[in-house]
Amino acid sequence: MNPNFIKMKNILCDFIEQFVPLTEDEKNVILELDVIKYFKKGTLILKQGKRTSESYFVLKGCIRVYYILDGTEKTTEFFTELEGYTPPCVLSNQPSELYVSCVEDSIIAISKPNMAEEVFKKFPKFETVCRILSEQLIVKSQTNFADFKTSSPEQRYLNLMKERPDLIQRVPQYQLASYLGIKPESLSRMRARIVGKK
Amino acid sequence: MNPNFIKMKNILCDFIEQFVPLTEDEKNVILELDVIKYFKKGTLILKQGKRTSESYFVLKGCIRVYYILDGTEKTTEFFTELEGYTPPCVLSNQPSELYVSCVEDSIIAISKPNMAEEVFKKFPKFETVCRILSEQLIVKSQTNFADFKTSSPEQRYLNLMKERPDLIQRVPQYQLASYLGIKPESLSRMRARIVGKK
Repeated sequence: MNPNFIKMKNILCDFIEQFVPLTEDEKNVILELDVIKYFKKGTLILKQGKRTSESYFVLKGCIRVYYILDGTEKTTEFFTELEGYTPPCVLSNQPSELYVSCVEDSIIAISKPNMAEEVFKKFPKFETVCRILSEQLIVKSQTNFADFKTSSPEQRYLNLMKERPDLIQRVPQYQLASYLGIKPESLSRMRARIVGKK
Repeated sequence: MNPNFIKMKNILCDFIEQFVPLTEDEKNVILELDVIKYFKKGTLILKQGKRTSESYFVLKGCIRVYYILDGTEKTTEFFTELEGYTPPCVLSNQPSELYVSCVEDSIIAISKPNMAEEVFKKFPKFETVCRILSEQLIVKSQTNFADFKTSSPEQRYLNLMKERPDLIQRVPQYQLASYLGIKPESLSRMRARIVGKK
């Protein structure tokens, strides 16, 4: 087995063990799942209009969620190491309204509902992990949304510098501007002002 | 037992049965839980600075989540019939940063993590319900956030008219404006314009 694969699977096991302890048997179940995929920077993992049943869990790299509206890209989310994302179309069973692409070379664990259910049957504690993780993700999503609603664009940028400073380095400025709900030229001015204040 | 109580508990059982079938035993477990509370319109269920371990599931009525920032209320969410909400402070174990109040007289099922865990032990399928429900809520929250980011204020209002028309009737206009991220006077003008177009 590719040593990088084993490293990634260990990252996945360590992540799960934050929630519940795993036996060697359970770790082997994870190691045997064929879930880890490598993607080059720029790869479109999901296109608008396509159907999928796949959820993504980022082991390494960064993926971006965006819409194309009136010919313009609108970035709504970024997911980096140890963050998971299920596109809405997986649950709605409709064609996707959004795109998912790799901002960097990325290593992603991909799961499907039927695969998850099989694992849950064998090891119910994986369902506990998914339940706890999901509850945390709801709170995170709602908190991010509340922060966005209650902040000015400058506060949003300052908040991002504090909460996810890596994103500012990793992501092109026009995508970051869109993600923060501001125009790229406003973001440039804002950054200059913030750097000037320091 | 209060017949209204039984009605509410049946609503809760019916809701759960959308996800998994329940045996009579399991329904009785739900009926025996002391989870249903009545609140008068205007009641503050959670105050900023307080701690809680309670999650809310609205059986009847409407609750509002808001922050007070620089002396101004900023409404971020409304939850109505068959919608659930866990305040972030439940998971973070910190004092709450936000308020939760009843927009109407409300009947709410209140759960705590230890209570949930006991039920999960007895009936693992409740954990499946919570897992599926949580996965749906993440997608809902992320989709709402994406819609908010990618829409103009007028589109947000039109979207609300389409997706949650009841809220427009049930909620005071200043709360609705804040929820939509617009000034109350802009919302009035927008409503007049939209009605004029019809």
